Amino acid sequence: MKPVPDKVIARLSQYRRLLTDHMDQDQTHIYSHELAALAGVSSAQVRRDFMITGYSGSPNRGYEIDELVKCIADVLDDPDGHKLALVGVGNLGRAILDYFSGRRPHLTIVAAFDVNPDKIGRHIHGVPCYHMDEIDRVVRAQGITSAVVSVPADQAQKTADTLVAAGVRGILTFTPAPMRVPQNVYIEEVDITTSLEKVAYYASTNTAVKREVK
Amino acid sequence: MKPVPDKVIARLSQYRRLLTDHMDQDQTHIYSHELAALAGVSSAQVRRDFMITGYSGSPNRGYEIDELVKCIADVLDDPDGHKLALVGVGNLGRAILDYFSGRRPHLTIVAAFDVNPDKIGRHIHGVPCYHMDEIDRVVRAQGITSAVVSVPADQAQKTADTLVAAGVRGILTFTPAPMRVPQNVYIEEVDITTSLEKVAYYASTNTAVKREVK
Repeated sequence: MKPVPDKVIARLSQYRRLLTDHMDQDQTHIYSHELAALAGVSSAQVRRDFMITGYSGSPNRGYEIDELVKCIADVLDDPDGHKLALVGVGNLGRAILDYFSGRRPHLTIVAAFDVNPDKIGRHIHGVPCYHMDEIDRVVRAQGITSAVVSVPADQAQKTADTLVAAGVRGILTFTPAPMRVPQNVYIEEVDITTSLEKVAYYASTNTAVKREVK
Repeated sequence: MKPVPDKVIARLSQYRRLLTDHMDQDQTHIYSHELAALAGVSSAQVRRDFMITGYSGSPNRGYEIDELVKCIADVLDDPDGHKLALVGVGNLGRAILDYFSGRRPHLTIVAAFDVNPDKIGRHIHGVPCYHMDEIDRVVRAQGITSAVVSVPADQAQKTADTLVAAGVRGILTFTPAPMRVPQNVYIEEVDITTSLEKVAYYASTNTAVKREVK
């Protein structure tokens, strides 16, 4: 199957969470315009996105929610489940382990890596922690295809190189340093500290502007 | 001062973390091309960004790191410090509290809000937790200007409305539902689950493509 554009993947993921986590349990159907309003997009967008899943709903009753969720899963989820590694078990790494453990049945963090001897050999939020030197061995042995990286910036590139050499094809990174990877590896960057500093900056400047107006 | 474009703010935040968290302690100076390589941007970009801070460095020795960090702080940080609220103390909310507590001296989460009676009245990672009904009172009393929101999607808009009415001007949201806010309120959206699902999807499709080639 041809890969689906990443904005569509992101919206399918968002729709699924809106449909599964936050709907009234008694509601069995939803119209495209209702889901569009929840997700903040147009109804036409919703309908186009669902054409990909191969489910078109009924003009009278809208989409059947269970059916929609199943169709999204057919696109997004690996039927065998998807095994992830976490590299860097600092504050943020632990928070990620805590947040994801048991949360998404099709996405499981099966191994964590760090260099701190206090962490190696232990289970952290239920996940075994290995030394970074073991990335290649463990990733291959467990068939891990994706990784979450929250290492210091000066370790980012080395970590990416090791993961890619071991067969990882998708990386979600929380470090502020960029990673260079081959074209067939998908990188997604999330930077919570920068996001928070931006919010604080604009909140402060707005306040300053307001004060001047007085 | 005129607000700085948000891409510049994001890069200044990134530069600061590269300069403070991950540099060799003995290094006192850095050339624009060195910082550019660390951050994954061009040297010209680095120089343009630092023109905003009003520090231009020396052609022979480059930028003085301490001076750069101070100049970035003059742009990004509120001299009185910046108080934040966290709304929604679920798994992710607790992880955020844990991650940020004491981490950034100029950004402090001073109040958390939830509806769960087991959490209200307690301190969670050192931060007092109040009932959501108290948002208006506490935000005004403490002079809170920004908030981190990790509530369920169906609570997102109501939470945003309450925060904005209380005077909040910047929101970092982790919920999958969009928030409509007045133009003078800055919204930043981070969606970790969607990011992870995208990474997993592309990692799987790449594997599939590879298998076909064999």
